[in-house]
Amino acid sequence: MKLLSFRYQEEERFGPKVKKEEAVWDVLAIQKELEVLPSFPATLIEGIPQGMEFVEQMRKLSEAAKASENPDQFKLSFSDIEWLAPISKTPKNVICVGKNYTEHIKEMGGDGPVDLVVFTKAPHTIAADEQTVSVHSDLTDAYDYEGELAVVIGKPGKSIPKQMAYDYVFGYTIANDLTARDLQEKHQQFFLGKSLEGSCPMGPYLVTKDEIPQSQNLSIVTKVNDEVRQNGNTGDMIRRVDDLVSEISKYVPLEAGDVILTGTPSGVGKGYNPPKFLKAGDTIKVSIESIGTLVTHLS
Amino acid sequence: MKLLSFRYQEEERFGPKVKKEEAVWDVLAIQKELEVLPSFPATLIEGIPQGMEFVEQMRKLSEAAKASENPDQFKLSFSDIEWLAPISKTPKNVICVGKNYTEHIKEMGGDGPVDLVVFTKAPHTIAADEQTVSVHSDLTDAYDYEGELAVVIGKPGKSIPKQMAYDYVFGYTIANDLTARDLQEKHQQFFLGKSLEGSCPMGPYLVTKDEIPQSQNLSIVTKVNDEVRQNGNTGDMIRRVDDLVSEISKYVPLEAGDVILTGTPSGVGKGYNPPKFLKAGDTIKVSIESIGTLVTHLS
Repeated sequence: MKLLSFRYQEEERFGPKVKKEEAVWDVLAIQKELEVLPSFPATLIEGIPQGMEFVEQMRKLSEAAKASENPDQFKLSFSDIEWLAPISKTPKNVICVGKNYTEHIKEMGGDGPVDLVVFTKAPHTIAADEQTVSVHSDLTDAYDYEGELAVVIGKPGKSIPKQMAYDYVFGYTIANDLTARDLQEKHQQFFLGKSLEGSCPMGPYLVTKDEIPQSQNLSIVTKVNDEVRQNGNTGDMIRRVDDLVSEISKYVPLEAGDVILTGTPSGVGKGYNPPKFLKAGDTIKVSIESIGTLVTHLS
Repeated sequence: MKLLSFRYQEEERFGPKVKKEEAVWDVLAIQKELEVLPSFPATLIEGIPQGMEFVEQMRKLSEAAKASENPDQFKLSFSDIEWLAPISKTPKNVICVGKNYTEHIKEMGGDGPVDLVVFTKAPHTIAADEQTVSVHSDLTDAYDYEGELAVVIGKPGKSIPKQMAYDYVFGYTIANDLTARDLQEKHQQFFLGKSLEGSCPMGPYLVTKDEIPQSQNLSIVTKVNDEVRQNGNTGDMIRRVDDLVSEISKYVPLEAGDVILTGTPSGVGKGYNPPKFLKAGDTIKVSIESIGTLVTHLS
């Protein structure tokens, strides 16, 4: 199921995409009108811990709407809603994995795989699909893109065994880990250079894990103004999704709604000679197979 | 005013310390019973953005209680409450400044002042005064203390000018930035080694800024089992509170309830030869002039 979060009539809502249409099922309206279920979560973050049962509930709601006299009244056209990031406020900072693709480590001047590198981005960095975000030219001369598979955690866990890791995954989305390379270098710890406002676009969809049984074989392509810059595959991750969930949760308890960015393949702007950093007016598109394309405009 | 957060009858509450008594004014009960004010925030995090007006309201409530027929009914003895950290859940990860005292940089093997270093600790690291926290011997052989002045942000701000910085400070508390030195080194970025559960004890009080007009001249002493390890002064910070609030907010918007740890003076366990790391059974006391003493037990 492809879920999206959106604002409609000044309210934050969520729902599954209507198949083959540019519209979303307004599940809260369906439940209110048709009373299909005994109860239904009011927010996505409340529903996520219920995992596949929550997904099943949404399927029931959209099927009830489809079978109703006037299904169209329960659909909201994409042109009528304001898109939000699938998770617009994470319970802690966004968790980010660095140096997780060998070719990317090399283009950044490293030799090869290192111990797990984890840093964070503050939650205000989260931006929606098609959003215009600042290139922060007052703060950086080296703003760079990083297309990444993002994992949305479904329920709380500590020291999760690797073989149980996918039980704690709710689904996947796309992230662009925008990074001020000069600040990242200057300040040693990555937090400041990784936390400029709007520097974590995510979306467009949160795809539930049942639709992506093999998250380690997805092509991931990043284009800047339609020039292909990154052309990788999640199969090349050094530490895979189950390793990351397991290893990170050894140190840091995970919560429902936490997001883990799994690192970027090679082809970032800094990897080119001369570097190809971002400028106002650029459009970045990160596409991941089975999820979609995340579009970000820079101003 | 010395504020504390606590749990009483399964509710999270807050209030000012009763002067010269081991008790707290139960301000929510005073307001409910005596109806002193037209309205009063239900939680500390709601009150903080109102700044000194909120402090004034609490003063009025405690004075009304004192003048009432039975002041004792509005006091809760420290022995009857469960202490919490003054801010028990920050809106984003706890913001931490590294390398902010020259002698500490040297004991860690560095040469001297460097560009601003900022990393984060996940919110679940926050622990209360007198709490027993794990030494995490399954994860680290090098758990270390760092006594620090912590700044509590009072209202939202971005790119705050240095001369306005104190307007955005609500008050101060004490923090112990417990750190797994081996993980900190191994994983390059500090997040994992700094985010073990319970690794950010804070308290006992949140002292409002009017009581600490000069936060850059406070003695700061850390003892482990009553042996003095750190004996510094906040006057030796490389970047002072106003610099930190101003510089950090250039990159990362601040919110009410955000906490900034301002770095640790020299004398950490790793600085000794041989190093003096922590072990189960140890008690750490961090004392800062005008605030009090934060006690942490390790198991």
